[in-house]
Amino acid sequence: MRMSRTYVPVLRETPSDAEIVSHQLMLRAGLIRQTAAGIYAWLPLGLRVLQKIGDVVRAEQERAGAAEMLMPTIQAADLWRESGRYDAYGPEMLRIKDRHDRDMLYGPTNEEMITQLFMSETKSYRDLPKTLYHIQWKFRDERRPRFGIMRGREFLMKDAYSFDLDEDGMRASYQAQFRAYLRTFAALGLKAVPVRAPSGPIGGDMSHEFHVLADTGESAIFYDAELENISIEDPDAVEKLSATYAMEEEEHAKVTDCPVPAERLLKRRGIEVGHIFAFGTKYTEAMGFSVQGRDGATVHPLMGSYGVGVSRLMGAIVEACHDDDGIVWPEQVAPYRAGLINLRQGDEACDAMCETLYGQMRDAGVETLYDDRDERGGSKFACMDVIGLPWQVIVGPRGVKTGVVEVKNRRTGEKAELSPEDALAKVLA
Amino acid sequence: MRMSRTYVPVLRETPSDAEIVSHQLMLRAGLIRQTAAGIYAWLPLGLRVLQKIGDVVRAEQERAGAAEMLMPTIQAADLWRESGRYDAYGPEMLRIKDRHDRDMLYGPTNEEMITQLFMSETKSYRDLPKTLYHIQWKFRDERRPRFGIMRGREFLMKDAYSFDLDEDGMRASYQAQFRAYLRTFAALGLKAVPVRAPSGPIGGDMSHEFHVLADTGESAIFYDAELENISIEDPDAVEKLSATYAMEEEEHAKVTDCPVPAERLLKRRGIEVGHIFAFGTKYTEAMGFSVQGRDGATVHPLMGSYGVGVSRLMGAIVEACHDDDGIVWPEQVAPYRAGLINLRQGDEACDAMCETLYGQMRDAGVETLYDDRDERGGSKFACMDVIGLPWQVIVGPRGVKTGVVEVKNRRTGEKAELSPEDALAKVLA
Repeated sequence: MRMSRTYVPVLRETPSDAEIVSHQLMLRAGLIRQTAAGIYAWLPLGLRVLQKIGDVVRAEQERAGAAEMLMPTIQAADLWRESGRYDAYGPEMLRIKDRHDRDMLYGPTNEEMITQLFMSETKSYRDLPKTLYHIQWKFRDERRPRFGIMRGREFLMKDAYSFDLDEDGMRASYQAQFRAYLRTFAALGLKAVPVRAPSGPIGGDMSHEFHVLADTGESAIFYDAELENISIEDPDAVEKLSATYAMEEEEHAKVTDCPVPAERLLKRRGIEVGHIFAFGTKYTEAMGFSVQGRDGATVHPLMGSYGVGVSRLMGAIVEACHDDDGIVWPEQVAPYRAGLINLRQGDEACDAMCETLYGQMRDAGVETLYDDRDERGGSKFACMDVIGLPWQVIVGPRGVKTGVVEVKNRRTGEKAELSPEDALAKVLA
Repeated sequence: MRMSRTYVPVLRETPSDAEIVSHQLMLRAGLIRQTAAGIYAWLPLGLRVLQKIGDVVRAEQERAGAAEMLMPTIQAADLWRESGRYDAYGPEMLRIKDRHDRDMLYGPTNEEMITQLFMSETKSYRDLPKTLYHIQWKFRDERRPRFGIMRGREFLMKDAYSFDLDEDGMRASYQAQFRAYLRTFAALGLKAVPVRAPSGPIGGDMSHEFHVLADTGESAIFYDAELENISIEDPDAVEKLSATYAMEEEEHAKVTDCPVPAERLLKRRGIEVGHIFAFGTKYTEAMGFSVQGRDGATVHPLMGSYGVGVSRLMGAIVEACHDDDGIVWPEQVAPYRAGLINLRQGDEACDAMCETLYGQMRDAGVETLYDDRDERGGSKFACMDVIGLPWQVIVGPRGVKTGVVEVKNRRTGEKAELSPEDALAKVLA
């Protein structure tokens, strides 16, 4: 993509109203802009990252056997009256009256709706088990939105819902999602710790939160150092992780007799990016959903729900992956793989080499952001650093004369002068 | 995907409350379900089609030089007060009060928001021209939602916005979108007619609607038969189409002296799926957006906006592409390319052949829906026909004995008994 065609309003200065580094850098790199309190527009680079995170989440959901669907953002209040949550939910629920004065709401979560959708045409044990998920915008009317998209009001979430016939089935569905979460965070280049969690307003007694480790994280977590030795490739990783001590500070404080010896107890800061629950028949009973079991008797299916903050993950990635000059994207979610910098736009030789390279990079499948603007070199360097693409290819008048370009690795800072062919090979490697 | 893992609640009977064929078939094929008046959930097959339509729209927007971003669904009312549209918009706008009693709304369109976002960091002629688009859920609180997703309240729309320095630029941006629309509808397998349109509440004097031809279409359009001879590959197609007579019935009725001879004037039924406008400085003036022009003087950029109903397109495709047995998807947007039917689930030989074929189809990149449910053959045939995938591969006990499967083309009804290898080759061709 040519910078001149897309919209990347990079800021030189750190916005004074942004308190945390991910918010600062997401503004500076031109990824997002606030349009109302806690509500953000995703500018072209930000949207690309959001889509890539969504793709990773999607791939791991599919691998776990979940089927994607899409529920609407606006729900009827009556649905929430059936479960009893309409009155219970509090002021974070955005309540709406439509033109016919019917009570509606902007969905903060979808347990009721998925149950309603699934129960109306599911009558037999043969239709179970099933896990359905969607990636959709949610709204929670935070009293005090802050930290950019980390605690915004309109946010993108993946929520999955499992339906099973019995406890063993529910446990298996829960573990499949648990494993999918471990794989998702690893694929995003993040280190995540599953923490035993109180189940809160969704209900149920099996629940974990997933915290991405970052020095700037909002919460403190305590865990057994042994946890770091468990590989997610281990077929028993989920069981082992579930059995290993890990608590958020508030819960840890309630533990009177911590089973972990002090020297093995780690305290780290984390950002909550996922939360999974198994709550059995809470909604299926309240909403009257039953199916015919194998033995002919009717049973209420057992459910679990599994959330990941897709937009929040972007903030967590930036918190975990940046340096003094800006963002340092993991390759899987970088908005582009490479930036192509023309140091003298308008110079015939520089323009020609850039155009040739840009075409070659595109043909080779390298997603490239070409800075073809008429700006000074120093400004283009700073801009590309703050954006944080994994590779930079720099074309200047001096190099053009000897047929070389400079390739810079954003993470290591390593630079090399190479022929355009070798530069392309390096970026591709 | 295995039917047992996904959720495809196909209906045998035509729902009595669905008035038009696309609504009936989208319900019967298990693509959508209503969750509140005019609000729908997209079940797994429906979502796949929606995503594929979105991909086609996206590809043609990129080709036209537009950059993708994503604006939020909830907007501040103050933004609309700036343009004067907040009071003007009427009861179709879903108005909301948040917990701090601030006036918000669910965006029905985004002229104000894109102007606000773009103007705050665009100061010079060097930043223009630019066309930005997003694909996002919109809400219009229709008094009487009907016809399924064709006139729903929450719907998915692609809206693009162009910013130019002068009239010529605006005209070029308008024509680029015009061409992108022609390409989009052709790529979706649809025949669309661009109709000169009154510009309505968005304002401006250059405007076209695009109507997909379907016998069951909601509106009547009149056009010069010459229009059908213009190829969209013609570099002057946009100019030629713009110059060719085409009007919706209501506008045509106002024309006192139709320039088309009666024998060349066609009347067809159509479904409006797109609407484009060029309205100049209407919003940039109202909102105070100006940039420094080439000559140093400040100018208000000229805008256009370009909408396509992405979810509505699905309805239009079903209206245009079905037969008595169900939907007949164009290949580009079919939820899967092939359906694999196991006529005797549980029979060892049938299951084995299906599993082998399913793996081979997946490895060959054929998106396949495998009906692995324990149902009768007749029910599976009817189900696959109503779903309307381009190809069906049928495995039954008789064929398994002689090593053949049946391949059926959904559109032509043509059937052939083939070896599994030849069946795969046919589906791939």
